[in-house]
Amino acid sequence: MTLLADLLSTVFERRYRRDASDTALDGRPLTELATALVGSAGETSGLALGSEILSRFAQLEDGDKLAFFRDIATTMNIDPERVRSTLDDYERAPSKASYRAFAEAAEPARQEMVRRLNRVPGATGALVQMRADLLRLGGAEPELQALDLDFRHLFASWFNRGFLVLRPISWESPAHILDKIIAYEAVHAIDSWDDLRRRLEPTDRRCFAFFHPSMPDEPLIFVEVALTKGTPGSVQALLAEDRDAMPEDAADTAVFYSISNCQAGLASISFGNSLIKQVAADLAAELPGLSNFVTLSPIPGLTKWLDEVGLDWSTEDPDNMRALAAHYLLKAKSRGGLPYDPVARFHLGNGAIVHAVHADADISDKGRAQSGGAMVNYLYDLPRVAANHENFANTRDVVATSDVQSLAEQIAFSTTDER
Amino acid sequence: MTLLADLLSTVFERRYRRDASDTALDGRPLTELATALVGSAGETSGLALGSEILSRFAQLEDGDKLAFFRDIATTMNIDPERVRSTLDDYERAPSKASYRAFAEAAEPARQEMVRRLNRVPGATGALVQMRADLLRLGGAEPELQALDLDFRHLFASWFNRGFLVLRPISWESPAHILDKIIAYEAVHAIDSWDDLRRRLEPTDRRCFAFFHPSMPDEPLIFVEVALTKGTPGSVQALLAEDRDAMPEDAADTAVFYSISNCQAGLASISFGNSLIKQVAADLAAELPGLSNFVTLSPIPGLTKWLDEVGLDWSTEDPDNMRALAAHYLLKAKSRGGLPYDPVARFHLGNGAIVHAVHADADISDKGRAQSGGAMVNYLYDLPRVAANHENFANTRDVVATSDVQSLAEQIAFSTTDER
Amino acid sequence: MTLLADLLSTVFERRYRRDASDTALDGRPLTELATALVGSAGETSGLALGSEILSRFAQLEDGDKLAFFRDIATTMNIDPERVRSTLDDYERAPSKASYRAFAEAAEPARQEMVRRLNRVPGATGALVQMRADLLRLGGAEPELQALDLDFRHLFASWFNRGFLVLRPISWESPAHILDKIIAYEAVHAIDSWDDLRRRLEPTDRRCFAFFHPSMPDEPLIFVEVALTKGTPGSVQALLAEDRDAMPEDAADTAVFYSISNCQAGLASISFGNSLIKQVAADLAAELPGLSNFVTLSPIPGLTKWLDEVGLDWSTEDPDNMRALAAHYLLKAKSRGGLPYDPVARFHLGNGAIVHAVHADADISDKGRAQSGGAMVNYLYDLPRVAANHENFANTRDVVATSDVQSLAEQIAFSTTDER
Amino acid sequence: MTLLADLLSTVFERRYRRDASDTALDGRPLTELATALVGSAGETSGLALGSEILSRFAQLEDGDKLAFFRDIATTMNIDPERVRSTLDDYERAPSKASYRAFAEAAEPARQEMVRRLNRVPGATGALVQMRADLLRLGGAEPELQALDLDFRHLFASWFNRGFLVLRPISWESPAHILDKIIAYEAVHAIDSWDDLRRRLEPTDRRCFAFFHPSMPDEPLIFVEVALTKGTPGSVQALLAEDRDAMPEDAADTAVFYSISNCQAGLASISFGNSLIKQVAADLAAELPGLSNFVTLSPIPGLTKWLDEVGLDWSTEDPDNMRALAAHYLLKAKSRGGLPYDPVARFHLGNGAIVHAVHADADISDKGRAQSGGAMVNYLYDLPRVAANHENFANTRDVVATSDVQSLAEQIAFSTTDER
Repeated sequence: MTLLADLLSTVFERRYRRDASDTALDGRPLTELATALVGSAGETSGLALGSEILSRFAQLEDGDKLAFFRDIATTMNIDPERVRSTLDDYERAPSKASYRAFAEAAEPARQEMVRRLNRVPGATGALVQMRADLLRLGGAEPELQALDLDFRHLFASWFNRGFLVLRPISWESPAHILDKIIAYEAVHAIDSWDDLRRRLEPTDRRCFAFFHPSMPDEPLIFVEVALTKGTPGSVQALLAEDRDAMPEDAADTAVFYSISNCQAGLASISFGNSLIKQVAADLAAELPGLSNFVTLSPIPGLTKWLDEVGLDWSTEDPDNMRALAAHYLLKAKSRGGLPYDPVARFHLGNGAIVHAVHADADISDKGRAQSGGAMVNYLYDLPRVAANHENFANTRDVVATSDVQSLAEQIAFSTTDER
Repeated sequence: MTLLADLLSTVFERRYRRDASDTALDGRPLTELATALVGSAGETSGLALGSEILSRFAQLEDGDKLAFFRDIATTMNIDPERVRSTLDDYERAPSKASYRAFAEAAEPARQEMVRRLNRVPGATGALVQMRADLLRLGGAEPELQALDLDFRHLFASWFNRGFLVLRPISWESPAHILDKIIAYEAVHAIDSWDDLRRRLEPTDRRCFAFFHPSMPDEPLIFVEVALTKGTPGSVQALLAEDRDAMPEDAADTAVFYSISNCQAGLASISFGNSLIKQVAADLAAELPGLSNFVTLSPIPGLTKWLDEVGLDWSTEDPDNMRALAAHYLLKAKSRGGLPYDPVARFHLGNGAIVHAVHADADISDKGRAQSGGAMVNYLYDLPRVAANHENFANTRDVVATSDVQSLAEQIAFSTTDER
Repeated sequence: MTLLADLLSTVFERRYRRDASDTALDGRPLTELATALVGSAGETSGLALGSEILSRFAQLEDGDKLAFFRDIATTMNIDPERVRSTLDDYERAPSKASYRAFAEAAEPARQEMVRRLNRVPGATGALVQMRADLLRLGGAEPELQALDLDFRHLFASWFNRGFLVLRPISWESPAHILDKIIAYEAVHAIDSWDDLRRRLEPTDRRCFAFFHPSMPDEPLIFVEVALTKGTPGSVQALLAEDRDAMPEDAADTAVFYSISNCQAGLASISFGNSLIKQVAADLAAELPGLSNFVTLSPIPGLTKWLDEVGLDWSTEDPDNMRALAAHYLLKAKSRGGLPYDPVARFHLGNGAIVHAVHADADISDKGRAQSGGAMVNYLYDLPRVAANHENFANTRDVVATSDVQSLAEQIAFSTTDER
Repeated sequence: MTLLADLLSTVFERRYRRDASDTALDGRPLTELATALVGSAGETSGLALGSEILSRFAQLEDGDKLAFFRDIATTMNIDPERVRSTLDDYERAPSKASYRAFAEAAEPARQEMVRRLNRVPGATGALVQMRADLLRLGGAEPELQALDLDFRHLFASWFNRGFLVLRPISWESPAHILDKIIAYEAVHAIDSWDDLRRRLEPTDRRCFAFFHPSMPDEPLIFVEVALTKGTPGSVQALLAEDRDAMPEDAADTAVFYSISNCQAGLASISFGNSLIKQVAADLAAELPGLSNFVTLSPIPGLTKWLDEVGLDWSTEDPDNMRALAAHYLLKAKSRGGLPYDPVARFHLGNGAIVHAVHADADISDKGRAQSGGAMVNYLYDLPRVAANHENFANTRDVVATSDVQSLAEQIAFSTTDER
């Protein structure tokens, strides 16, 4: 990674320097600079302006950041009258010029502002951080939500799957990347470098992350994988400090036991689907003995939903806990008929199916609190993933093994979620 | 480069394979697949569709390519009524939803098609090639020019300067890259590997190219540089087979003697300005003895203009040729008051000035034909480049040394270009 | 490093596999295999033999290792009669054949054994480990000391300075290398990853190590450097957890505050001299503001010597402690007139001089115990290092600043070390 | 490769600079400097001396080089009296000290000289070149042959197989390496970059070379491989300009059709055996469809031997030419019963067998002259290579297919070569 960072970023990094002529920037308000950037005829002053805007923004207090967002959300919005008139002109006489005029009118100037900011060396990461600020501060203001859609539109294009790079993360990876893996792990916290090492170094453990060439020191999303014999039923066993590692070619199963998004500023830009499929395909190619690709996933909404619908649960009764979990995964629905559980939505949407549920499978405080210790295996049956995916997209039916279906039927409770 | 290519592309390349379920694609027309791609709910089938579209398109005859472009230019265009109604909705009640509806309506579906195609491993280069086909075949049809604006809009975002990587090209570079340097050289043809070697291997020669991480084997633009003592007045001297190389730290001048764009499909996406400035800055940092950054540039429009305005010229009269060249560079104007000469427009627009003109400076057939053998040095005075650039953008005044001005005055001819 | 490791070792690693025909090896004693290896006509069976020997040796108990060493020390020693007769032949009729016969007779077969073992992929590290075992177990047995001289002779050739690679160690280095830096630090223990990070990540800290291409995951020796303004007088200040880092270009001094050899099996193969000089030269080239290259070194033999010669010392009296330290460094001699202190011998032998001594400079338990908390700066005055080195090699005079000389004079004690 | 070169050599390259104190070296004769180098107490002056010796030597005329070799061959030879006395001492009282004294006496000082020269950055390549000069100039002088044995002894240790790196050579390799491949090809000359490209770029062509980390820009030996269906019978077909390439996974046979040693200074340091076996093993792992590993080899001694023994031959009679070739390969013996043909000695010694012979298989001028156009396939039957090797080493029997044996029997001629 260091090398990649080197190749990709030192070229530009720290090269741009404000020169004497830039002092003119000093006194001017940030929004004025942003307006100038969009109007900037030339690349040179554009770089000076862009660099100034990014560095000033980064130092603002939250209140001033919010004010800046509101400013550009309104002053750099589309002008409906101009959209209408250019559209009329284009409809009357379609030409390169009339189409260009419409296209420019229909896109708010703030999109062009973000693109021009991105010309500054190292800007991509700064813009991702800027959107993280916007999401954190913007709340439900319609103008700011619209502004966020513009960021998201651009980021979906820039972080297009075709531009991402999959990299293994191992105990031989650079420490500053591993440091971020520790910080970003969102499912089963990594509490020390020794804990990290136990997840990376053994022959039966793997980790993979997506990177973007313009942010080579920042993982975007990563997945931790355990190679096992058979499908595991608890995360405690997987992460036990004193377990013996297995030779990698003795494994028949790859378990995706933790998937973490790393960048708040890339919310709603989906990488997880691609990540799991690529990692599964790569592992299948590397280790022909693998025939089984499953997750060991949390059920984050279980106890919340049980409490909502008034079903009793107790970690003391594991059989009932399993049945409740099965019932919840198959029956609890959210708006539009999608599963109530966000992790279920993700994996089922990817084309996985519900394979097995386990009680006492995550006995950490967090695991007990969110799901009474229950966990679930989603199965990625590679030859059927595409068909499952299509089917789920069309019907929203939750496919599960007959065991899980039987479990779910044990709960005599019927809910129609009307949200 | 091999390594970079390796890191960046082997991850994805050749990984996607059509599987059995994709046979459904076989009989369907290309435009239908394109429509399905834009509507595709899921990433999985999107990849299969996208891959099929790209590989089928690449095998089409020109007539069929043109038909495909016309199809998507019309069937995937904006729908004015939908733009108007979503705009009305948004104006009436600005919200995240109404803004999103408008934004989706105002952007033609073909843009989303191109973005989804780009998810396929290796697609970026294929899409650049697709636009090259469009430019070659599209002519002046307004619908196809509009389609091209959509490509250009996306490419300007993807090939944003912040995403490019500057790489030195040397005799130690991979042969398949050097092969492309030979093929793409557009100013002074490289006629053999030995010729190439003379431009790369000596201590007083350099070459640099921009690359995009998703097309790591394809230079986008490159510049050839000679390190010299003093400003050279002919390209023959620079490229002489039997010249003695100079130690790099004896040089006081860096001469940009050839700049070539490599990708027809990236026409109008400007890289040259950034390239020259970065290379100048890098060389200045590496070799503190350099104090002079000039070009040795062709004057491609000179004889054509002289013939147009009826001025006599002859390569037999070098003094007059220099004066004519100076006059042309300073006085001949194109539409909007910009210089008539395209190379002059480029360098003056970058913030360079006209430094010196030379007769008998390019005595190749091409050089004699286009400029009577005359060439020009543009000077990049780094501390003044930004100010020059601003000044030229505002006034279109051509700044030249007093010598060149005096030369230009020797021609008693006045023209007002009325185009 | 991962990359280097990759390039250099995956080529061979894990490629050699015992095949069916190798089962013949199974029952035979290790020494018999070693004898067969030296006699092995062909490379193929040599690899099988070598691989078997290395893997079996690694699994032996200490007693069996010692037995193996004794075996080869005697059975693979020179044959004096054969040396004499081939020498006679050569003297009588010098020829290619007679010289070859003598050279083969004069070199014990165990050297050839070690060279042949080294053909096995990954063997270099295993052989370094084998010598570590020999040094640990061999004691003062003359035969084993002679065997060790053979190892050392070969290693001096293989680990020739011209084959070593200097690499910066930073917070971006691979974790498995950093893990070894923590383990191998021999001067000021690194007690956690956070402690390590404080020594690597700040702008004013550096670390460099020598590697051998055949052991790319194993540092051979490393040095930790602090960039400072002025010469520091205590290691506590350098390593303080809460200190503020300084921009690297504000520093005028590079302080080598810790040098650790990593490989017990490379004892007496000297790298430190080269390391310090290369690092000093590289830092001087990178940071022109550096004008001062000093160590902050322990004085490991101080209290032991003071006790031996009966001089009272106390950490409560820092002025006296400094004077005692100065006196010791300048006056205490070991066999042959060299300084008594091993660290002093090393740096003075490299061409450094005694620059300053400090009390309360290392208040750790170890620092107090070995030197009453005193430390010393050795100065590497680059333009004078070669002359100092020559002078010390010839005269063994300890050069020191006048301050240190005056301090040393305060101690009215005269010793003539007669060892 | 550029990267490897970069990692491994820029560290040291061009770092060592003579400083002012080195002017003392200027007037002294080269042999005097060599003597001083061996006696040099310190590394610092050793580097200055070594660097001076290497750069001066490289500029000598051949006569002066020869004089230098004669000087060190005699003045730095062993001293028999000292060898005898230290041997007596050691025999009388074996100890570390007495063994060291003997070992130092028994090794000529010129070996230590070469080792010390090798400490200079970049010296390894210069020393290989020095030995090439020695072999070229030394002739049959016994002293110089003995000197060469010392070089060879050291080089065998430094270029130990465990230190070599196998690298694929492809059309993506650095041009300066490919340039050397063109220059060093010794079997079937590469007459242009296009010819080279035809041997590297197609999917069914491969090339591999061994490198040493200290000479990263210099291949040591390389092999060119064609992937084919079936065993090819002529090199013209393999190298045809207009042939169609085959997908790599359609091949069942890997043909080693050219093996070239690159460094005259590494004569008698054998790499070819390792190279073929590693390449065969790597290809077998990469392409499971390969089941056949053969050479298409020249028969360089055929016509010379036929002329010597008075057997008529003509390229006009291919059937007879094949029989003669088979007979020669199986029956013609050199000193000690080894095959007369050097290429046969190499491959049979590696464990290959004679698989087939072909007439009209190399119709180049060189091919007709040396073997009447005949060529031979040697077969590397991987599971049997080790046994074949042992068998040949013990019995010198040439194993061949029954077809080749029958062919050989057609020639009614019996020779017992008594050389």
